Amino acid sequence: MCNTEYLPGQVTYTCPRDGGNLDVILDYSALSKKYQPADITTRTDGSLWRYLPLLPVSDPGGDETPLRAVGWTPVFNLQQSALKLGLSHLWLKDESRNPTASFKDRASAVVVARTRKMTGMDGQPPILVTASTGNAGAALAGMAAAVGQKAVIFSPKTAPAAKVAQLLVFGARVLLVDGTYDDAFDLSIKASNAFGWYCRNTGYNPFTLEGKKTAAFEIWEWFEKVLKTQKESNMRTDLTIFVSVGDGNIISGIHKGFKDLQAIGWLEQMPRIIGVQAEGSAAISNAFHAGIEEIKPVSAATLADSISVDMPRDGVRAVRAARETGGTYITVSDSEILNAIPELGRVGIFAEPAGATAYAGLVAAVRKNLVKPDDPILVMNTGSGLKDVKAVMQSVANAPIIEPTLEAVRKIL
Amino acid sequence: MCNTEYLPGQVTYTCPRDGGNLDVILDYSALSKKYQPADITTRTDGSLWRYLPLLPVSDPGGDETPLRAVGWTPVFNLQQSALKLGLSHLWLKDESRNPTASFKDRASAVVVARTRKMTGMDGQPPILVTASTGNAGAALAGMAAAVGQKAVIFSPKTAPAAKVAQLLVFGARVLLVDGTYDDAFDLSIKASNAFGWYCRNTGYNPFTLEGKKTAAFEIWEWFEKVLKTQKESNMRTDLTIFVSVGDGNIISGIHKGFKDLQAIGWLEQMPRIIGVQAEGSAAISNAFHAGIEEIKPVSAATLADSISVDMPRDGVRAVRAARETGGTYITVSDSEILNAIPELGRVGIFAEPAGATAYAGLVAAVRKNLVKPDDPILVMNTGSGLKDVKAVMQSVANAPIIEPTLEAVRKIL
Repeated sequence: MCNTEYLPGQVTYTCPRDGGNLDVILDYSALSKKYQPADITTRTDGSLWRYLPLLPVSDPGGDETPLRAVGWTPVFNLQQSALKLGLSHLWLKDESRNPTASFKDRASAVVVARTRKMTGMDGQPPILVTASTGNAGAALAGMAAAVGQKAVIFSPKTAPAAKVAQLLVFGARVLLVDGTYDDAFDLSIKASNAFGWYCRNTGYNPFTLEGKKTAAFEIWEWFEKVLKTQKESNMRTDLTIFVSVGDGNIISGIHKGFKDLQAIGWLEQMPRIIGVQAEGSAAISNAFHAGIEEIKPVSAATLADSISVDMPRDGVRAVRAARETGGTYITVSDSEILNAIPELGRVGIFAEPAGATAYAGLVAAVRKNLVKPDDPILVMNTGSGLKDVKAVMQSVANAPIIEPTLEAVRKIL
Repeated sequence: MCNTEYLPGQVTYTCPRDGGNLDVILDYSALSKKYQPADITTRTDGSLWRYLPLLPVSDPGGDETPLRAVGWTPVFNLQQSALKLGLSHLWLKDESRNPTASFKDRASAVVVARTRKMTGMDGQPPILVTASTGNAGAALAGMAAAVGQKAVIFSPKTAPAAKVAQLLVFGARVLLVDGTYDDAFDLSIKASNAFGWYCRNTGYNPFTLEGKKTAAFEIWEWFEKVLKTQKESNMRTDLTIFVSVGDGNIISGIHKGFKDLQAIGWLEQMPRIIGVQAEGSAAISNAFHAGIEEIKPVSAATLADSISVDMPRDGVRAVRAARETGGTYITVSDSEILNAIPELGRVGIFAEPAGATAYAGLVAAVRKNLVKPDDPILVMNTGSGLKDVKAVMQSVANAPIIEPTLEAVRKIL
């Protein structure tokens, strides 16, 4: 981390000096002079574009397409689960309600907006490319399709069929790489450079973070409202957020969003951010608990494929997201993740394994007394259970097959 | 159809005289005296509960749960597709954005609301039950789970694994019936009667229609806005709606919604409703084109499992939905349905086969000159492609597997 600053036109992806990930720095003092919170919170757009003044891209324009319908996801009150866990205030933000059913739509939407005014050799916006185990690829393919841009996706050949199908249906060119996610990642960068494509890679392109930070903006808006309506209750004002961590880009994005709000002077209290990793893919958690920022690669093995990463691409910022907010990292086993899926299902939320990981982390945190009963807690569900049904099937018993008779029903009940 | 009227407490499901499906009749003259359209359209709830004054249930109460987040789905402007088809005005209403990713959430939400104040033998709201190939079951299981009610789902054992997984994750008791959907349907009714459960079955419980009609309310609100913003253009004011048809309950529900609006005096022009069936499951289309209302069962065979029905349970009303609005029925082959999936994907929408069927119907209608180039057209996508990935996989070519080298990329492009 050399702390060098560049102008927007000077750099496209990472730091030319040390290869580190770049943060987009907004002109916070100008923003705080120009806007009041109400200028944002009274906007009527039910999407992340309500935060356009705080984003480093211009309006992507065009008609009502799925690109315009990203974000502004619902927050559900998990009263039954809270009761079960002995907590007073528990909510879940359901990112599976995004157009391609995962958190990644936020990043892809902002990256696509960034390219709308760029031109390649043919005078058109450039071809978009990313490496992805599935969700980020689907998000890029879907958002690109929405505005008629082309996308190329590099996936490890182990990506679940459901996720690959979605990429193909969106018309993306999909190349299944005979290797790991990390091989696909490296190849996508080489290919972008060789062919003049615009690379969306997570933990590489600084604009993914700018998209993901909009989740923090929504949490901020939502929690301000909760605090207002709960004024008479003694609810504490320090929010704790649980989020699953693979590459480290989502947790970093959420942190960036809160830091932006703080820099503008709109955030009263920085939430505590707790990252949850699968035991078998815990490179960032390892660094956090070793008290360092150096990320040592692991040989990742977890059924939560969206967070199965050998070498996290956004590890440093992900460590800081927990460290600088008084948070921590928790690891959970695959069986804890599998248990969390029907736990969320029983309150009406269908999460993919990586999404349920955050809830599994909360369960572990309660057990380890890392949260207090009266902590206001928000769990992020990052993707839909429909994304990876094979894994989900492992979390429930098979349904019995019966003869079509009342007797058969009676017998089985 | 004996046209007998009953009071709300007199009947639970179908007509005791002839077994026909019942319509809920609101007090339209009281409603038109009590409300103006603006009383509805200025409400801030982004869900079907904004239409509570026009629904025969009371507020389901409770906190923010998925039950409160049903409906108010986005309408996308399909400019690229319109251009391709030679149309001027083409939109798609994306019902896959509902909590359990299909249109059926609307029906289940209203049915669950209906039972919130009912009590079974234990003093609790009754166990909910339905027969379902998947979407209706998932919707009922999800909505019931959201408010802590129990659900029992009877599915034919051929239901796709992805859909069954969703039922199980939501904590429903799932019984896979060794038989057809129709066998599951009959058994669910027998079991409801035998065990005192409340049956949500489509084309049986009159409240499913009341939930589904909310889509018509949303279309009405949306189209009024479109007409206002397009005032200077010469856009015609007669909307044509394409919707896929299996049981016939969705098309009947949409029709009911518009009829309600007409009865209150808020609808300027009844849209033309065009039903689209799979060739292999076309019982309602057959009756429509024979000019009769008698539905003769077929031996259903289509990959669009959500609309694969031997004996449609809401055929009479479904025939009338097209006949009374100047619409028609169109049948499409499975290969036309499969073609429609990537067609929609290319503009960023991922539909399940039954959802893409409506678009396939539009393509056929254009070919047969059943629509005029300047007709304003709305296509309903009734469910997410993630619901049935096996079928979707048939609609796209496999992605190639490559070595992780730039050379391999170069070679394949």
